[in-house]
Amino acid sequence: MRISELSGASGVPVATIKFYLRVGLLPLGRPVATNQAEYDEIHVRRLGLIRALADVGELPLGTVRQVLEAVDDPDVPMHEALGKAHILLGPELDGTSDPDVVAAREEVDRFLRELGWTVSAESPGRDELAFALATLRRLGWPDTDPARLFTPYAQAADRIAAREVKATTPAGATRAEAMERAVIGTVVFDAVLSALRRLAQERHSAERLRSRSAP
Amino acid sequence: MRISELSGASGVPVATIKFYLRVGLLPLGRPVATNQAEYDEIHVRRLGLIRALADVGELPLGTVRQVLEAVDDPDVPMHEALGKAHILLGPELDGTSDPDVVAAREEVDRFLRELGWTVSAESPGRDELAFALATLRRLGWPDTDPARLFTPYAQAADRIAAREVKATTPAGATRAEAMERAVIGTVVFDAVLSALRRLAQERHSAERLRSRSAP
Repeated sequence: MRISELSGASGVPVATIKFYLRVGLLPLGRPVATNQAEYDEIHVRRLGLIRALADVGELPLGTVRQVLEAVDDPDVPMHEALGKAHILLGPELDGTSDPDVVAAREEVDRFLRELGWTVSAESPGRDELAFALATLRRLGWPDTDPARLFTPYAQAADRIAAREVKATTPAGATRAEAMERAVIGTVVFDAVLSALRRLAQERHSAERLRSRSAP
Repeated sequence: MRISELSGASGVPVATIKFYLRVGLLPLGRPVATNQAEYDEIHVRRLGLIRALADVGELPLGTVRQVLEAVDDPDVPMHEALGKAHILLGPELDGTSDPDVVAAREEVDRFLRELGWTVSAESPGRDELAFALATLRRLGWPDTDPARLFTPYAQAADRIAAREVKATTPAGATRAEAMERAVIGTVVFDAVLSALRRLAQERHSAERLRSRSAP
């Protein structure tokens, strides 16, 4: 297909596609004439992945590029590439050397050990939890015992992740397909879970208000 | 306390505090001498809230200011202010007028109706779900039936939100305290849930790999 058809199929404007081609985020098409190239389904899917990462995941383009490199590099083992993508998809944290965060990190490590989860010591989620714990303490949150604070979220996350991991890699999927699904799933369903949590909060708040003002 | 003590108590550098004072994010201290002001616990907590919104919530400072205005304005009813804060805390979406997103929005509305949740037609979560659904379709996600796709996440979110709403407003809390807790809770526990989901995914992936390679 031509670049205008690629734009129609992907919903990405031609000028944006040209920009992605120029900066190397999107592989060039097959040249068919001077100033004309032929694109295919691989380009449509790659544009979708870029949009998912940039729009839904709100990642800067430099990070999008690094995620795509991890997805594409056939020399990086799948499990490692997924780990790398996970690190890139997480938030950038400043101040993990702050003494409060360092102390919180030890408590988070103990909490995860007690949960019995096998996760790498380098997983960025550990620092994210430590950062959250230190933030809550700084803000005077009434109860900051990691087990009481995190357990309900850990249980919910565990049920969800068990389903997701089972669904991620259907038999016969290529490496690129499996990586793409994992990256899309992480980013898009983070947004889904966050949106549904806010909607559910609104629903429960409204019901609480109503039951209070009932005669 | 002096500005240097405020910096120590809040963990925010003096230069950053001065910047927040200059742009009006932080209320001025009580002047005690030329070029010297006295700060108190209100300043410590406000700095904590700014950091939670900017660092954990990754909100731009313009949005932080709007959230603080909604928190502070005593003329805005609590429920409305919370709704406003929720809109500001959500992601900024481009392209909600895209025909695919508009079609997906109708399906999302039907899904929420069938769930029986009472949520405003203007809640930003609706568009976020529509955006996620349209993105998954564009990316060729194998199954994009909203009920099958979203129900496990909705159930998890609902259990969590029911606890959160109950815990949010302890008896005797002032309006400002209740608003602060709601805003902090939304932002910090979004990060907690997202981090735990990634850790749980890692844990289930590792267990799956191990059970495959077992002799």
